[in-house]
Amino acid sequence: MRIAVDVMGGDHAPEAVLQGALKAHSELALETTLVGPPDVIRSFFSTGIPANIHIHPASQVISNSDKPAQALREKKDSSLAQTIRLLKEKQVDAAISAGNSGAQLAISLFDLGRLEGISRPAIAATLPTLTGKVILIDAGANTDCKPNNLVEFALMGKIYAKEMLEIDNPRVALISNGHEESKGNELVQQSYPLLREKEKNFIGNLEGRDILSGQADVLVCDGFTGNLILKFAEGLAFSIYDFIKTDIKKHPTHLIGLLLIRGILKSFKQKIDWREHGGAPLLGVDGAVIFAHGASDAYAVASGIRTAYTLHQKNILQKIKEKINGTSKSHQ
Amino acid sequence: MRIAVDVMGGDHAPEAVLQGALKAHSELALETTLVGPPDVIRSFFSTGIPANIHIHPASQVISNSDKPAQALREKKDSSLAQTIRLLKEKQVDAAISAGNSGAQLAISLFDLGRLEGISRPAIAATLPTLTGKVILIDAGANTDCKPNNLVEFALMGKIYAKEMLEIDNPRVALISNGHEESKGNELVQQSYPLLREKEKNFIGNLEGRDILSGQADVLVCDGFTGNLILKFAEGLAFSIYDFIKTDIKKHPTHLIGLLLIRGILKSFKQKIDWREHGGAPLLGVDGAVIFAHGASDAYAVASGIRTAYTLHQKNILQKIKEKINGTSKSHQ
Repeated sequence: MRIAVDVMGGDHAPEAVLQGALKAHSELALETTLVGPPDVIRSFFSTGIPANIHIHPASQVISNSDKPAQALREKKDSSLAQTIRLLKEKQVDAAISAGNSGAQLAISLFDLGRLEGISRPAIAATLPTLTGKVILIDAGANTDCKPNNLVEFALMGKIYAKEMLEIDNPRVALISNGHEESKGNELVQQSYPLLREKEKNFIGNLEGRDILSGQADVLVCDGFTGNLILKFAEGLAFSIYDFIKTDIKKHPTHLIGLLLIRGILKSFKQKIDWREHGGAPLLGVDGAVIFAHGASDAYAVASGIRTAYTLHQKNILQKIKEKINGTSKSHQ
Repeated sequence: MRIAVDVMGGDHAPEAVLQGALKAHSELALETTLVGPPDVIRSFFSTGIPANIHIHPASQVISNSDKPAQALREKKDSSLAQTIRLLKEKQVDAAISAGNSGAQLAISLFDLGRLEGISRPAIAATLPTLTGKVILIDAGANTDCKPNNLVEFALMGKIYAKEMLEIDNPRVALISNGHEESKGNELVQQSYPLLREKEKNFIGNLEGRDILSGQADVLVCDGFTGNLILKFAEGLAFSIYDFIKTDIKKHPTHLIGLLLIRGILKSFKQKIDWREHGGAPLLGVDGAVIFAHGASDAYAVASGIRTAYTLHQKNILQKIKEKINGTSKSHQ
């Protein structure tokens, strides 16, 4: 697979991104295009650039404080814009960035366009649960949604879960404030009957305490709610880990206990660690764009590239396209 | 203080509620009215009813599956309706129920009415953080809100935090999907400038990962979002606790580790345990109504009564009334 990597995107760019790209490149059958200032990239490879790694020049950088619309208009030669452009021109099969996610969204929508039948592309994040994984869609692309958007998210999320999590018939649920059909805000209440009609494996509403329960494989919500869930889980899990570690260190007997159970703490941390779960694709645009976490280290970048690889190998975007065409035709 | 307790409300009613009421009664200067079927209540007190505990009869029970509007109309003699009625008629100073929260909300709004100047009463929950506590408002009363509702929530939440958490000048934040003013869904974006204008201690937006960080004392959001946060935190915290405990039990060396660090696990569980943090009042109605968790055991019921007691002792509802009057007058 050919992948374009935005070398300048993310809190730990360019080093972490370059290290992560190199790590993924050494593990997978990749042709990797690193996008950014050539001198920065070259100086990273002191012993020469490996085979099948290319440099695509970009002179500008989009920072996290740049406004998306302005970045789209004014930073045409940014590493992010050039990364997406390579995808648009089909010079690569997938693109990844850990940079300004608002700008990445705006540029992707503008350059790649939406799939026919999809009114709003959405970010599909894989959320670690304590028993497995769940797909959260929309994880942050659309803060305000309409019921038909949520129906589209469910359709795309189901195909994504089926392929990525290898589940035959993913169970789809709406995130709400109670299980009954009458619960929810206006959006959820209006979406419920549509989903019941269109998704044969729609299991109804799930509430906050069910999110990590493993009762559903796809959790559907607006992007404001999805972003909140994703970031809250991240914050809470790490706070708890820190709490246990800090408290343990205070007491000598606890320290012995810590040594005895450090395997557990490690496996616990691994379970809650978003770096393990790769990047999140923007589903519904015409191209494979992966959003990596802004705080990505090399490990997380490599994990995001692995997500892009699987997305490509399993031809998931094509399957989504076909499903949408099938669905819209069956409704004609 | 005189308190009315809905004996039949909650998953573990009536036993847990009666035990909890008795526990609180033995600790605080209370005149307790137990509301429910007299024979049920009497059979609990095998050795006679203690001094200052009264029985108020109610022949019906509102179940969790009862629709709020229907319960309000058709179950006039339910333990919940009678509990709120005692408050309405000023026979008691506060009322508490762990029962159907939708019905409790409907009956409270109908019987007690809103405070002048408050368009939407809201539930103020105390969320345990790993460093202290934070007030979450609205924790579930209003699924869809307008910007002026959020301004009212902030005002009420600030007074509540000041008195309950004993913080001189509580910091108020909006829950959003990013820190910048431009972030948020439509509701949040429209509320931001209003809060900046009206709340001198408004610190802006906080996102999911900041919720437990202790950066704010009052977190303002619509009730759909608040309910999600509350229930998600509860589910996640308990999942993690279970995970650690289960994993520890699998390995003999881990078991020794567990014995050495069980103090930590206990203090951790205590920190995340909603039972420690009492009930949540509905602020903005003309009376002290406490919502206890549906799964309340005796401990949680007693903790909720303690919240009611403090609310009354500190005259918090009166302070909210005065503040609203002051605010609305200063705008005339």
